[in-house]
Amino acid sequence: MGEGSINKGYYRLYLPINTIELKPKLFTKLYKHELKATQEKQEMENGSRNVLKPMDSEQLREYGHRMVDFVADYYKTIESFPVRSQVQPGYLHNLLPDSAPDHPDTLEQVLEDVKTKILPGVTHWQSPSFFAFYPSNSSVAGFLGDILSTGLGIVGFSWITSPAATELEIIVLDWLAKLLNLPEQFLSEGNGGGVIQGSASESVHVAMTAARDKVLRRVGKNALGKLVVYSSDQTHSSLQKACQIAGIHPENCRVLKADSSTNYTLRPELLQEAVSRDLEAGLIPFFLGANVGTTSSGAVDPLASLGKIANRNEMWFHVDAAYAGSACICPEYRQYIDGVETADSFNMNAHKWLLTNFDCSLLWVKDQSTLTEAFSTNPEYLQNKASQANLVVDYKDWQIALSRRFRSLKLWMVLRLYGAETLKNYIRNHIKLATVFEQLVSQDPNFEVITPRIFSLVCFRMVPVDNDEKKCNDRNRELLEAVNSSGKLFIIHTALSGKIFLRFSIGAPLTEEKHIKEAWKVIQEEASYLLRK
Amino acid sequence: MGEGSINKGYYRLYLPINTIELKPKLFTKLYKHELKATQEKQEMENGSRNVLKPMDSEQLREYGHRMVDFVADYYKTIESFPVRSQVQPGYLHNLLPDSAPDHPDTLEQVLEDVKTKILPGVTHWQSPSFFAFYPSNSSVAGFLGDILSTGLGIVGFSWITSPAATELEIIVLDWLAKLLNLPEQFLSEGNGGGVIQGSASESVHVAMTAARDKVLRRVGKNALGKLVVYSSDQTHSSLQKACQIAGIHPENCRVLKADSSTNYTLRPELLQEAVSRDLEAGLIPFFLGANVGTTSSGAVDPLASLGKIANRNEMWFHVDAAYAGSACICPEYRQYIDGVETADSFNMNAHKWLLTNFDCSLLWVKDQSTLTEAFSTNPEYLQNKASQANLVVDYKDWQIALSRRFRSLKLWMVLRLYGAETLKNYIRNHIKLATVFEQLVSQDPNFEVITPRIFSLVCFRMVPVDNDEKKCNDRNRELLEAVNSSGKLFIIHTALSGKIFLRFSIGAPLTEEKHIKEAWKVIQEEASYLLRK
Repeated sequence: MGEGSINKGYYRLYLPINTIELKPKLFTKLYKHELKATQEKQEMENGSRNVLKPMDSEQLREYGHRMVDFVADYYKTIESFPVRSQVQPGYLHNLLPDSAPDHPDTLEQVLEDVKTKILPGVTHWQSPSFFAFYPSNSSVAGFLGDILSTGLGIVGFSWITSPAATELEIIVLDWLAKLLNLPEQFLSEGNGGGVIQGSASESVHVAMTAARDKVLRRVGKNALGKLVVYSSDQTHSSLQKACQIAGIHPENCRVLKADSSTNYTLRPELLQEAVSRDLEAGLIPFFLGANVGTTSSGAVDPLASLGKIANRNEMWFHVDAAYAGSACICPEYRQYIDGVETADSFNMNAHKWLLTNFDCSLLWVKDQSTLTEAFSTNPEYLQNKASQANLVVDYKDWQIALSRRFRSLKLWMVLRLYGAETLKNYIRNHIKLATVFEQLVSQDPNFEVITPRIFSLVCFRMVPVDNDEKKCNDRNRELLEAVNSSGKLFIIHTALSGKIFLRFSIGAPLTEEKHIKEAWKVIQEEASYLLRK
Repeated sequence: MGEGSINKGYYRLYLPINTIELKPKLFTKLYKHELKATQEKQEMENGSRNVLKPMDSEQLREYGHRMVDFVADYYKTIESFPVRSQVQPGYLHNLLPDSAPDHPDTLEQVLEDVKTKILPGVTHWQSPSFFAFYPSNSSVAGFLGDILSTGLGIVGFSWITSPAATELEIIVLDWLAKLLNLPEQFLSEGNGGGVIQGSASESVHVAMTAARDKVLRRVGKNALGKLVVYSSDQTHSSLQKACQIAGIHPENCRVLKADSSTNYTLRPELLQEAVSRDLEAGLIPFFLGANVGTTSSGAVDPLASLGKIANRNEMWFHVDAAYAGSACICPEYRQYIDGVETADSFNMNAHKWLLTNFDCSLLWVKDQSTLTEAFSTNPEYLQNKASQANLVVDYKDWQIALSRRFRSLKLWMVLRLYGAETLKNYIRNHIKLATVFEQLVSQDPNFEVITPRIFSLVCFRMVPVDNDEKKCNDRNRELLEAVNSSGKLFIIHTALSGKIFLRFSIGAPLTEEKHIKEAWKVIQEEASYLLRK
């Protein structure tokens, strides 16, 4: 908790219990059912005495409506919550019992607990004033798709376990590949294709495992200790995690320095030098990870030049466009994935900035057999005619887990209920809002924008006084804590070349220009307070 | 498609288009909104001309209700669908356009497509006549939890990103550990704790990676080629996949034979012999996977004896109770996890048989630091006061991915809305139904039950004629295909000691005694037909 905020009394305002008391009227809809509670309890207990009917269609209808109302009311009131939860570690332990109830509670009781105990501990990613990390979009269409998916309750690991789940995924990933104008090799017609993973971490983990196994088939499995991975120091930590899990030796992970001279993108010459040095040392360069929209500053690596080096050296080239990939459906931003034709795998997260509720991480590969060779298993109990005849895709062999949800439904619904043109305008609007914020920052002499902005992320900081960078870092950290403790917005920091700066990341579905301006006002006020201290 | 079924005209009945025509009245609710379609389309297009409002609370309310109605109607009519989808590979490709629409479609159009194009390709896991694989339970409570989780749209990788998500998960996993009477070391008080993974595959992958890194820290990372994994040949293919991903050399995966003499459980002496042999050869035994409820026949390995061997040899001991773990909340079934106190990790899937909609795989470990040492990353942009002060759990360091959904909500709702006693009775009822099926099989001289039944899985087959096992296998395969092509139920096969047999797995939430009897009648009829041929 930032001291500044405590001093100013913001903190107390947002203690769990008060958070709720602030908006008693906003949830009145919930209470209309309160009289039903006794009846409900009896129903549930009958269930426990006789046999539970856990999937009664009329109960699903009634309770489902109530839960939808709860969610709708949540969105109606979302701006009344502190954006970043203000609870203390362990807060919930004291609010909930030590063991599960033996007998049913009512839905009323549970929803009451959600309001008074859970919501105070929620950091509101869907708040229009959430500017932290990168966005994780929720939309009506994505929400509907998730309801349908969880409602159908199917597990589509093999084609036969629900042909529609596999086939819709193939089709919708092709749709998106076309919107992104990906090279034909990534489409499902030939050897390529797309698959939905849970996250960019899983995508890079899957790609790296496939790449590792591919090279080890060539050079022998005892050569694992010689395999080398390359990326810039701006690459997301998921690549490091993928290396750890794949068993790549830490000393063989080349984290190449990217600095302000290239706006924090990876210099191809640096990569070439590293690769050459490793080859001379008898090592085996096998994996290059490049970024379209780094986490810290939204930087875009030069894919074409990097890809050439990877291709020449028979390395697997993975492109992580988890956040910025969504923007590339707009013709004017497509340039940022130019060179993707040199890649072996390409990843973007529809759950970040393309309105598809988490999780929906899209991974395309040029050669699907690299995945199936790494991840296939074929036990007797999973054998079936369609799979044995090689007539179908079994996505279980494209991922870590066996089981998988029907996630293509929500992406399909987003694409159909909004349409491609609307989605492009949605992206453009956020980028426009980022230019607004950028201008606001530029006009204030106490602040500076630190790296050139490409998409909807603005990196900025309070400027140093008397060139004291250390003090400047401390001050920006203080500003961060004060702003987040206010509850009025949520941003995070990062570091570039030893400088702490703040990230203002726009992309929540509810964000409008007024939220940008309000946020800036809070930041300015907290900064003035710090400067006066 | 089974020829027998085509001959009898079942197949035609279930062509996609007829599937729909069979039940025009059942979806009438959907059409009441049809007049709104034009208005809707205009709304969406306004969205595209101006700026999309993808999260309007009143649109969410209205459309959410309609989707809930759609799901409720689906459950009302679920018995009218062929249980296993009867479509042909590639069916959907011809029904959907080649690219995403530029402009919005209406919800009406999308729901119509779900009915006419998607549902025919769905294999109905929630059908009361779904007896394939193991169940994947859906319930009203689980459904509500998923709606709320997707509605809140938070991503709880670090504590600060939504403290409630982390804390509720810790609490609810403790609740379940207590219901299972797990040793205290698995609870969150000390060094242990539970975490929700996506699947049993992920759970064993995570456990094995942690185990691998733990032993390699001791013996040096170049010893990877010496590490040996042990399991019975009845172990789920996810263990083999975990070995592949962890880079364990295939020749070091000991798949120990389990046969009918021990009801397909792993003999401790066999394990001891293998471990001794490997130690003598200078290899490093490091991981043992045991099963409580194997996939093929529901067998239960003798945990205590196996665990002793693992402990004595400093091996990681992982217990996979993905399916049968749920039964162990009943005191009378708790005996089947006796010996779990010798395990390092224990896994059960609440999404299988405990009414929590997929996915919700529960993994407990005794020493959480083994996970965090394997999976931690700590980039600047994820640093925050609570994490740096080591005051909180950051579940990102307990799993492969960074991001994660708020999955504990649905498990919490299941426990609260049903209560522990009701859940136990729910399990008991399925096991009782299994005894009913078992009796039916036993009474028919053309059939035999093949392994002793413990939980709700019955393994059976048509008996061989003249001791011709090959012909018997073929006949059981034919029976399988005929039964599944009827659309009236769905079962799968497996093989034990070279014999093909059929698995009748009970556990769908809607299954009642009448469905068991109807299913048996279909099986008997198809068998008679085969015997007459």
